Amino acid sequence: MTRANRSRNLAESRKEILAAAFGEIFAHGFHATSIDAILEKTRLTKGALFHQFATKLDLGYAIVDEVIAPMTMARWVHPLASFENPVDGILHQLERNIGRAPQAALNLGCPVNNLIQEMANSDAGFQRRLHRVIERWIDGIEMHIERGQKSGHILKSVTARHVAEYVVMSHEGFFGIIKGLRDKRIFRSLLRSLEVYFAGLIPRTT
Amino acid sequence: MTRANRSRNLAESRKEILAAAFGEIFAHGFHATSIDAILEKTRLTKGALFHQFATKLDLGYAIVDEVIAPMTMARWVHPLASFENPVDGILHQLERNIGRAPQAALNLGCPVNNLIQEMANSDAGFQRRLHRVIERWIDGIEMHIERGQKSGHILKSVTARHVAEYVVMSHEGFFGIIKGLRDKRIFRSLLRSLEVYFAGLIPRTT
Repeated sequence: MTRANRSRNLAESRKEILAAAFGEIFAHGFHATSIDAILEKTRLTKGALFHQFATKLDLGYAIVDEVIAPMTMARWVHPLASFENPVDGILHQLERNIGRAPQAALNLGCPVNNLIQEMANSDAGFQRRLHRVIERWIDGIEMHIERGQKSGHILKSVTARHVAEYVVMSHEGFFGIIKGLRDKRIFRSLLRSLEVYFAGLIPRTT
Repeated sequence: MTRANRSRNLAESRKEILAAAFGEIFAHGFHATSIDAILEKTRLTKGALFHQFATKLDLGYAIVDEVIAPMTMARWVHPLASFENPVDGILHQLERNIGRAPQAALNLGCPVNNLIQEMANSDAGFQRRLHRVIERWIDGIEMHIERGQKSGHILKSVTARHVAEYVVMSHEGFFGIIKGLRDKRIFRSLLRSLEVYFAGLIPRTT
């Protein structure tokens, strides 16, 4: 095998392991997921897995850095760029990612929130990485809120960072309570209430 | 031993086990907590524990029903009765239970939220019990919101249930993000934003 082929194969098997491990851990939690259960979802050997991830913990860390972090930005932040008013974008993404998601998917909760609740207090490596995911998520929303302030859609008197923190908090809260109730009917009322909050950030037309 | 003594002893050892198990599971999660770790925090034997709880799962269920459910009502719902305006009470309890709580306690998150994220999707018994805790929490807040509508503190045009759902969602969200960041400085800005939401529910004085 050429070196180029070998490194392409390594990259592909890494992706395959990460995708399988993400799915298992998202569905069952980190503790409840075994390396064997992950391997069963791939065509790879245990040797191939341990070649790339020395321990289950290393694999867990890679899932946060290489799967959850980019996924969070792709689902909740980057799409806002196509909305003139970022608040419309935030509501649209909630509608798309929660309102239109099947109940079975929502029962799994939010990958970030799940791992925070399970791992942030007991493992410093998870904690540091999940903290970074949350910070970048807030950073991304803040940037769009500032854009909305410049374009006159959002009051200039509010602190964009605070709005961004509240938006991210409410996403975690939406996922948490929908998972707890296993019933997304509550989504509609939560979204209306979030709109009441946003209404308080709109410049009054006089 | 008389029958009365025996049943008093059983009740006391049940309380002791539940308190120890709650502490361990709150700190480490359900999966990561062993019966041995719980027993180490008590003066009881394994036999005494299994006499009351046939399995670790039974013990987990009892923690939700007998510890977490009443604790949630005692911390977040019952105290609202002493506030003429329930919104003042909600903000006061957040200040007291989160704003003034030590960071180390907040790093543990919310007992309800932790168990939802870890167990609600994988175990129907936990799911049913945690669902009931959330429903009663919402019921309790709803009752106080209705009282606030009658006394003129809250707009009669809003649906009390929806406000209650949003309030409970935001509690879970506050705990979730503070645990994720391991930094309660964000609490101050979240509370201000929640006040922006509440401001949208106040009757306008004309």
